[in-house]
Amino acid sequence: MNLEDKIKQAGNVARMLRNAPQGPYVFPMQSEYTNWRDEQRAWSETAVMFDQSLHMTDIHFKGPDVLRLMSDIGVNGFKNFGRNKAKQLIACNYDGYFLGDAILFAFEEDHYSLVGRPVAPNWAAFQAETGDYDVEVTRDERSVANDGRRLSFRFQLNGPATHKIVERAVGSPLPTIRFFAMGEIEIAGVPIRALNHTMAGVPGLEFTGLELVGPSDGAERVREALIAAGEEFGLRLGGARAYPSTAIESGWIAAPVPAIYTGDAMRAFREWLPGNGFEANASIAGSFVSDDIEDYYVTPWDLGYGRVIRFDHDFIGRAALEKMVDQPHRQKVWLRWNDRDVADLIADSLFGSGPHTKYLEMPVSNYGTNSYDQVLADGRLIGFSASSGYTVNVGGWSSHGMVAEDDAVDGREVTVLIGEENGGSAKPTVERHVQRAIRATLRTSPLV
Amino acid sequence: MNLEDKIKQAGNVARMLRNAPQGPYVFPMQSEYTNWRDEQRAWSETAVMFDQSLHMTDIHFKGPDVLRLMSDIGVNGFKNFGRNKAKQLIACNYDGYFLGDAILFAFEEDHYSLVGRPVAPNWAAFQAETGDYDVEVTRDERSVANDGRRLSFRFQLNGPATHKIVERAVGSPLPTIRFFAMGEIEIAGVPIRALNHTMAGVPGLEFTGLELVGPSDGAERVREALIAAGEEFGLRLGGARAYPSTAIESGWIAAPVPAIYTGDAMRAFREWLPGNGFEANASIAGSFVSDDIEDYYVTPWDLGYGRVIRFDHDFIGRAALEKMVDQPHRQKVWLRWNDRDVADLIADSLFGSGPHTKYLEMPVSNYGTNSYDQVLADGRLIGFSASSGYTVNVGGWSSHGMVAEDDAVDGREVTVLIGEENGGSAKPTVERHVQRAIRATLRTSPLV
Repeated sequence: MNLEDKIKQAGNVARMLRNAPQGPYVFPMQSEYTNWRDEQRAWSETAVMFDQSLHMTDIHFKGPDVLRLMSDIGVNGFKNFGRNKAKQLIACNYDGYFLGDAILFAFEEDHYSLVGRPVAPNWAAFQAETGDYDVEVTRDERSVANDGRRLSFRFQLNGPATHKIVERAVGSPLPTIRFFAMGEIEIAGVPIRALNHTMAGVPGLEFTGLELVGPSDGAERVREALIAAGEEFGLRLGGARAYPSTAIESGWIAAPVPAIYTGDAMRAFREWLPGNGFEANASIAGSFVSDDIEDYYVTPWDLGYGRVIRFDHDFIGRAALEKMVDQPHRQKVWLRWNDRDVADLIADSLFGSGPHTKYLEMPVSNYGTNSYDQVLADGRLIGFSASSGYTVNVGGWSSHGMVAEDDAVDGREVTVLIGEENGGSAKPTVERHVQRAIRATLRTSPLV
Repeated sequence: MNLEDKIKQAGNVARMLRNAPQGPYVFPMQSEYTNWRDEQRAWSETAVMFDQSLHMTDIHFKGPDVLRLMSDIGVNGFKNFGRNKAKQLIACNYDGYFLGDAILFAFEEDHYSLVGRPVAPNWAAFQAETGDYDVEVTRDERSVANDGRRLSFRFQLNGPATHKIVERAVGSPLPTIRFFAMGEIEIAGVPIRALNHTMAGVPGLEFTGLELVGPSDGAERVREALIAAGEEFGLRLGGARAYPSTAIESGWIAAPVPAIYTGDAMRAFREWLPGNGFEANASIAGSFVSDDIEDYYVTPWDLGYGRVIRFDHDFIGRAALEKMVDQPHRQKVWLRWNDRDVADLIADSLFGSGPHTKYLEMPVSNYGTNSYDQVLADGRLIGFSASSGYTVNVGGWSSHGMVAEDDAVDGREVTVLIGEENGGSAKPTVERHVQRAIRATLRTSPLV
């Protein structure tokens, strides 16, 4: 059975995803190394290291046509792209709706790798295999699909001490590595590409993150060298509890519904995708409900990627996006939840015999693959709230919002409706509960 | 290095344990199967199944002297004990202080197994190996010490539907199984001993739990048969989040400090124990602080086991316990934490820029191996508060208390001091925090 078959069998794909049994993704990392509060504080004050070796899909593309392949599916510009460059690839469907993003690593001029949630890497592999490209595809599956056997290790350091720690581990000054470029370094005799990148901070503002990629048989030596180098700089290992909360601060909206479930143009991809893969098993959670899955689709502008679209090349979705340019868009915003309202929500989720409000998991309170809560202003729906959670650096709960541009006024008070309708969907992660509107302050720039 | 060496090196064993890096035990089970709220509700309303195959130390004792061995170390009576009986073995040191408890299974007249936290099984193995017993010891280590290879599977069902589900899986009426006795049954062709036992309910009150033990190569067949049989009865699988919260309801005090760290009489045992085992790595967490480890020791009466002591046989600690009989004891009580105070504590652990109160993990809020918080009445220390946490069935937070008998007045309002002194100990699970006294109502009987 493929994804297309599964959707046909289900009848309504929006209802299928809203009631899918998939809970929030459990990252294949130790839950906590010390405690998630101090692990969060580390990326703000010293440095944190996350072992990202297991959880992401990594697909390698080799051959003379790799640049053309990526340029054909990416809305991004590709001028000057090549060896030791990287890029957050943004892919859309033919109608200009967001399909997926992933980090594109150019290891060689003819050898790229695309790393992230499975959708964009799968889309690139599908295009490579079914289109007219001289590209060889090698899948390095995430551990849930491959028992943890990986080709590469991937250690991500974040925080102000990152540079010093990696330099200490290397044993000599680091080469200059520009933002989203890679440097070639060696730690404990293991060759590594070091991507200047950040998960927790806001991209581009400062040099606060390095993602170190190398052959998996060198993982333990590099890990030990980094831990030893980090000791005097206050490096903490970060676990599965803290890890997804990095995105809450950075503003990376990890989980929009990919625009692949409808339309004739996307059918071949749905038929290519398995009926039991990520795209087929993903769930939707939250107070925003529609039986039309396209109501969950978003555009690059909604996610803050309007600035990366380059109409200097042909790519899938270009014509549709060109028409959208001057249309009104939604805008990515940060929603700082009201502490008093959240405290009351938490209390009412736990105490008393009456109907409980939705339990908020800590630190990240998502309870499905893709989170969509209603955001209202003066009782009017102005957009969605996505991944939500708490960090010690924010000092409270916040979420990402995608709201109508005209409504994206910094400092505006809005409400977010927490929980699902009619006592909750059939997702087994969802206990019976009642909805609760909480106040939030809309911010057009990051909270920390 | 053995435990005795490690203590000598540390200097003060109380400080060693209070600053030990060990966090709360992470049970080797899937974290949640559905969600921990509904998993907790299941043992009250339908049934829950926990896979206990991995986490407990299980030591087998075979030979003609097994009964004498256990009788020599157990304060319990052993009249009529034998094949297909079981017992919560309570062991004390020579001074009558509690050393450990574990479940003793009599599979045959000359084949017992002792299952639980490592201390009591280790003590029995030490006695068997160093004393004059014709007993062969076979260690079946918990998965943290043995990569998950076990001799037996162990599925625990709890809740009102337990009997019906197991009967359905067996395919015929169950034999009569008295409380803490075992029945011989077969599921999916696998021979099983079924212990009438309960984790969540109060022992002896009703037939609400069965622990099914069989050879590990039959585990998957039995699991599948139980899940299939449980479907129509609302059986839920229980995960690592919900699992330790069963004890909060039942009143089993899982983690008193074992009385092994001091005294000449216990030195040989300390020299026998490794310097990196459970006893050496255990930590103490909470607001009760003393540099004298003996202040953390408890008696069987403090834990509610006074009723099981039988002076009808010789056993280690007997003389000391006989002297204690008419002395004042502490009494086990339940402390129902004040919802308003807990809600404020949670809010103050998360929000604002000021010093935070101690974060309460949910549902179980222990942050070390052994939890000891101060319990005060009118500003006077009256005892300890042990394992704490939330269950939906209680509808709030509660903990176990061990308080002076005279102070154990049902309905009395006491305070529990939450958090550690001076900003917190060096345990890496502990973020910097301030202490907070919360109100609690003392109950002399279970809360649910």
